[in-house]
Amino acid sequence: MLIIMNREATHEQIQNVVAYIESLGLRAHEIPGESRTAIGITGNQGALPAAQFEELPGVVQAVRVTKSFKLVSRETKPEDTIVQVGDVRIGGTELTVIAGPCSVESREQIFKSAELVKRSGAQLLRGGAFKPRTSPYSFRGLGKQALDWIQSAGKEYDLPVVSEVVDIESCEMALPYVDVLQVGARNMQNFTLIEIVARSGKPILLKRGPAASLDELLNAAEYILSIGNYNVILCERGIRGFSDFSRNTLDLNIVPAVKEASHLPIIVDPSHGTGHRKMVSPLARAAVAAGADGLIVEMHPDPDHALSDGYQSLYPTQLDGMIDSLRQIAPAVGRTLNPRP
Amino acid sequence: MLIIMNREATHEQIQNVVAYIESLGLRAHEIPGESRTAIGITGNQGALPAAQFEELPGVVQAVRVTKSFKLVSRETKPEDTIVQVGDVRIGGTELTVIAGPCSVESREQIFKSAELVKRSGAQLLRGGAFKPRTSPYSFRGLGKQALDWIQSAGKEYDLPVVSEVVDIESCEMALPYVDVLQVGARNMQNFTLIEIVARSGKPILLKRGPAASLDELLNAAEYILSIGNYNVILCERGIRGFSDFSRNTLDLNIVPAVKEASHLPIIVDPSHGTGHRKMVSPLARAAVAAGADGLIVEMHPDPDHALSDGYQSLYPTQLDGMIDSLRQIAPAVGRTLNPRP
Amino acid sequence: MLIIMNREATHEQIQNVVAYIESLGLRAHEIPGESRTAIGITGNQGALPAAQFEELPGVVQAVRVTKSFKLVSRETKPEDTIVQVGDVRIGGTELTVIAGPCSVESREQIFKSAELVKRSGAQLLRGGAFKPRTSPYSFRGLGKQALDWIQSAGKEYDLPVVSEVVDIESCEMALPYVDVLQVGARNMQNFTLIEIVARSGKPILLKRGPAASLDELLNAAEYILSIGNYNVILCERGIRGFSDFSRNTLDLNIVPAVKEASHLPIIVDPSHGTGHRKMVSPLARAAVAAGADGLIVEMHPDPDHALSDGYQSLYPTQLDGMIDSLRQIAPAVGRTLNPRP
Amino acid sequence: MLIIMNREATHEQIQNVVAYIESLGLRAHEIPGESRTAIGITGNQGALPAAQFEELPGVVQAVRVTKSFKLVSRETKPEDTIVQVGDVRIGGTELTVIAGPCSVESREQIFKSAELVKRSGAQLLRGGAFKPRTSPYSFRGLGKQALDWIQSAGKEYDLPVVSEVVDIESCEMALPYVDVLQVGARNMQNFTLIEIVARSGKPILLKRGPAASLDELLNAAEYILSIGNYNVILCERGIRGFSDFSRNTLDLNIVPAVKEASHLPIIVDPSHGTGHRKMVSPLARAAVAAGADGLIVEMHPDPDHALSDGYQSLYPTQLDGMIDSLRQIAPAVGRTLNPRP
Repeated sequence: MLIIMNREATHEQIQNVVAYIESLGLRAHEIPGESRTAIGITGNQGALPAAQFEELPGVVQAVRVTKSFKLVSRETKPEDTIVQVGDVRIGGTELTVIAGPCSVESREQIFKSAELVKRSGAQLLRGGAFKPRTSPYSFRGLGKQALDWIQSAGKEYDLPVVSEVVDIESCEMALPYVDVLQVGARNMQNFTLIEIVARSGKPILLKRGPAASLDELLNAAEYILSIGNYNVILCERGIRGFSDFSRNTLDLNIVPAVKEASHLPIIVDPSHGTGHRKMVSPLARAAVAAGADGLIVEMHPDPDHALSDGYQSLYPTQLDGMIDSLRQIAPAVGRTLNPRP
Repeated sequence: MLIIMNREATHEQIQNVVAYIESLGLRAHEIPGESRTAIGITGNQGALPAAQFEELPGVVQAVRVTKSFKLVSRETKPEDTIVQVGDVRIGGTELTVIAGPCSVESREQIFKSAELVKRSGAQLLRGGAFKPRTSPYSFRGLGKQALDWIQSAGKEYDLPVVSEVVDIESCEMALPYVDVLQVGARNMQNFTLIEIVARSGKPILLKRGPAASLDELLNAAEYILSIGNYNVILCERGIRGFSDFSRNTLDLNIVPAVKEASHLPIIVDPSHGTGHRKMVSPLARAAVAAGADGLIVEMHPDPDHALSDGYQSLYPTQLDGMIDSLRQIAPAVGRTLNPRP
Repeated sequence: MLIIMNREATHEQIQNVVAYIESLGLRAHEIPGESRTAIGITGNQGALPAAQFEELPGVVQAVRVTKSFKLVSRETKPEDTIVQVGDVRIGGTELTVIAGPCSVESREQIFKSAELVKRSGAQLLRGGAFKPRTSPYSFRGLGKQALDWIQSAGKEYDLPVVSEVVDIESCEMALPYVDVLQVGARNMQNFTLIEIVARSGKPILLKRGPAASLDELLNAAEYILSIGNYNVILCERGIRGFSDFSRNTLDLNIVPAVKEASHLPIIVDPSHGTGHRKMVSPLARAAVAAGADGLIVEMHPDPDHALSDGYQSLYPTQLDGMIDSLRQIAPAVGRTLNPRP
Repeated sequence: MLIIMNREATHEQIQNVVAYIESLGLRAHEIPGESRTAIGITGNQGALPAAQFEELPGVVQAVRVTKSFKLVSRETKPEDTIVQVGDVRIGGTELTVIAGPCSVESREQIFKSAELVKRSGAQLLRGGAFKPRTSPYSFRGLGKQALDWIQSAGKEYDLPVVSEVVDIESCEMALPYVDVLQVGARNMQNFTLIEIVARSGKPILLKRGPAASLDELLNAAEYILSIGNYNVILCERGIRGFSDFSRNTLDLNIVPAVKEASHLPIIVDPSHGTGHRKMVSPLARAAVAAGADGLIVEMHPDPDHALSDGYQSLYPTQLDGMIDSLRQIAPAVGRTLNPRP
């Protein structure tokens, strides 16, 4: 159920509705918009009668929401959500580029990466400290040490930091060090993890699972919003298909589909979405042209000696070139991308 | 087997190699390039010994080709193929846009469509006369009457015409009327049809099947080239996936993959690739940004009353807007798109 | 629209309804059932008013059919269709096994195959004369010569013959030689071919395309029935998926789904459905246990020297063993499989 | 690396090899077989030289294993693994059937379920206490209360209990109550969870993720074995495809593929694999015929009023009928299924 308040509804009227909802043992989610406030109700088992809400002062309408997701829905909040990370605004007019190595491998490697990322014009630094790996015998990241190094590198080059967490322990470890917590594709429906990261209050980068439908992706995001954390950035990173030429099938159709169904920002990961260095820049351009709010790409100072995912990591000069071409495309989709620093 | 000739090889030397190949009961395919000529050999059952060819005058090297396709391969011909249709060059610097209704429905409808297509800046007119339809009870096109109308409309507005053929009968009927023969996705591995259209000598628009791998697509094209028709335009139109938000999954990863593996041009069909009018322009932009040589899109003067595919056909003004935005993106990928006439 | 006649409706009443339907410019399809006759109507563009039919003598009810397929629907004809091929009944209590080599390679090979097939207890002989192949350079079958040989082998060992046709030419060539015409997976939506084989009046083996939905499969069959040929055998042969352990993904879920939606028999091809000899027998057993009416399997007297698909062809003794185990499973699903001759 | 010991190797020789491996900072996994012992080595970053191991007394051969999984591989251990749960042996000649409701809903419901499961001849009781659900607003299970009830019901009817855990908290809660810990499909690559359940030492039921390859499934199991817990039961439960007639696509090809690649038992879940009650029994029969070691199926005393997954839960009499028909199929695949108690 979604309660739409009058444009002129007072603060008291809104609080009154919230109090009434809570008196029923339900949860109220205030969703302030540009022109009016809406209040989402969650926690009800069955349908609620609209009439009892529509009689409250300041209420225009009580809308039954048929989709299982509510808070992420554009019906609930027509305006785009902008997620603020430091000085960076994700989901606004300015495109966001997140870049860096798959894994933090050494202090030197991540500082060099940060320098190159900054130089390219990208605004955030990525780097893995905890790596979920298909095989138990693969390199799984340097943990706390990596977090400490990437935080220092981010500070040195004035870049907020994005890093993946995989469980409660890594989440607690990462909290003091990172600015955006990433939930990886394999964990999109690890609801325990999702609730833990949601409660941190930090912005969350939520990657679409390789077999996830739009409904499942938005419901996973709904878990986060239903806990009261509205700072969610969705990410398309390729789905599993039958391709004989790419690691995954990058599904850019989802970009306009998300834009229609939800107010949340969506970025694209062309590194995992293609799995081949040569394809990254073309698909990065495509993602921006399709309307994505930004990109997350793997770049390594020396990809040929990377400990993980080297074959899909850009060379530093490729990152520069990619961002230069995005700067040309941005105006065609009503976006900007600031010049290199 | 591929015979690479010396840069300075004479015409006689080339003819000598061709004659030798034919004397073995095999077929020789001369592939002139910018700097040197190559000669593809087909018709051999097993491997051929390289040495016997390398001794012929003017031959640099005889290369065993491990892929099952040869003539479509960029190894065979490093330079991009440009397919010339009237004054339009598909595969060069200039982007190509093909637009028009799913089906030719009436003389008036296709003339109005042609006028709108011309006005938008698109260079070719599409319109179906023979429609393969899932159900035997659906509208299957107006056949010869449609061909006559679309030819007249194309002439009136100086637009070469693209139309699908589905069998030997429709192919024979269409030949005097159309400039490009389209082989639809359902027929990508209808090899009898492919050989028939190939023999026409006309340019062929070959659509990727909904479950076709890159290898299968390029082998289907190889059928056409092996018959001696080198004027093939590939087309990505969406693959079958599990999407709950689009009719098909548009697979733009294949664009750079084709560019690397083959010299043939590739265009993209965002109408079938998404199945929703609202998604067509974003994905059209994405296709161009990914490096496609052009687009084929459905536009109808009155989509709400179209006899087929109305829900994915652009309104005329949407076509104008789409092309305007492509014009902005083109320079970022080293392309041009001429101003509206 | 489907007209349900009274159990006691007379022949005159039925002919009267047919005549009325035809007087409207529509087509009537008489569908005799065990207890009553139904009459399907095709050819109407929009909905027909039920009332005008329900007033005719002998008519119980006129049912609007919402699915795009009608004649293949179990609503239209509740009783299972049994396709008679020589003495073999496909779709009844007795399981049907079709076996033989991928391609007819020589007179000796197909005679030896027929002998082995007969010995195993299988009832029909398969063997390709026209092979659609991914690459234009692969072996494409021996054509008319192969047809002549397989017919002779079938007669010698009293086995009706199944062979694939790919176009009008091969269909005309095959008609005098074969008992069942096969439409391959690549051609499931080659509607021209489907209509040609339908008109032959012969039983048709229609293979599901690798990306075909149930709706598409049944609509392809509907093309055949709508022309008046009711002898259609459906065949599941694996869909395209992401498998790293089999050539295709055999989709046995479709067996009970077809049984619910349609009256047509469905058999399964575990050779293409798995692509590995070792998996053929387990999946053949699974298909029968899931309720399939039979199987089509590749067996070669000498698979290691087969010209095509040798890696998925059974050794002769494996065919024997497979059929022996099917004989044990049959009673659990209310079927029989006769002892070896 | 895998060290193959001589058939006559002494205990001292084996311990000597283990000690040598550990002295290199690596991990040794003793894998006793029927005729000889093998020793798996894990923990090495790069390749190890075989020669240095082959010189040790009692060693026959040191084999480099190219797959990323080792301990789950049939190369490592040729004999089938049998997982013992109470008196039930999973992976042996006797088929195992696990049945029960999706969720434990009340004491009465789970006791009634247990009675019906026992009566049917199934050997284990399933029932969810912690339910991962797509939407945050769906019923998520009764937690500890449910565990207490299902344990009591299992004891009352002498049925070991299987229940899903989703995180460290639910795992700790479940440990005193359940006999087999289930890791759900959404969590197949939640490696933190997998390591937690592995350390419990309990038998683990590991479900294949909806987009998981065989390699990924076996590597997920490898995580468990690499921790020293060898009691893993794999489970196929349907993959995500494009089906318009079933919730998932049950991929029975994986059954013989697992049997070839690994020594671990594999069971099949036809309830989730089809998503329709009517399809469950046919596909259960198919799974057994394909060689599965058992089944896990949803049965509810009153499916029409189930709190979750009612539409795919069997009626009690359907479970009886299904197991009766499995009893008929079992001998065809060299299996048994004991008569009802």
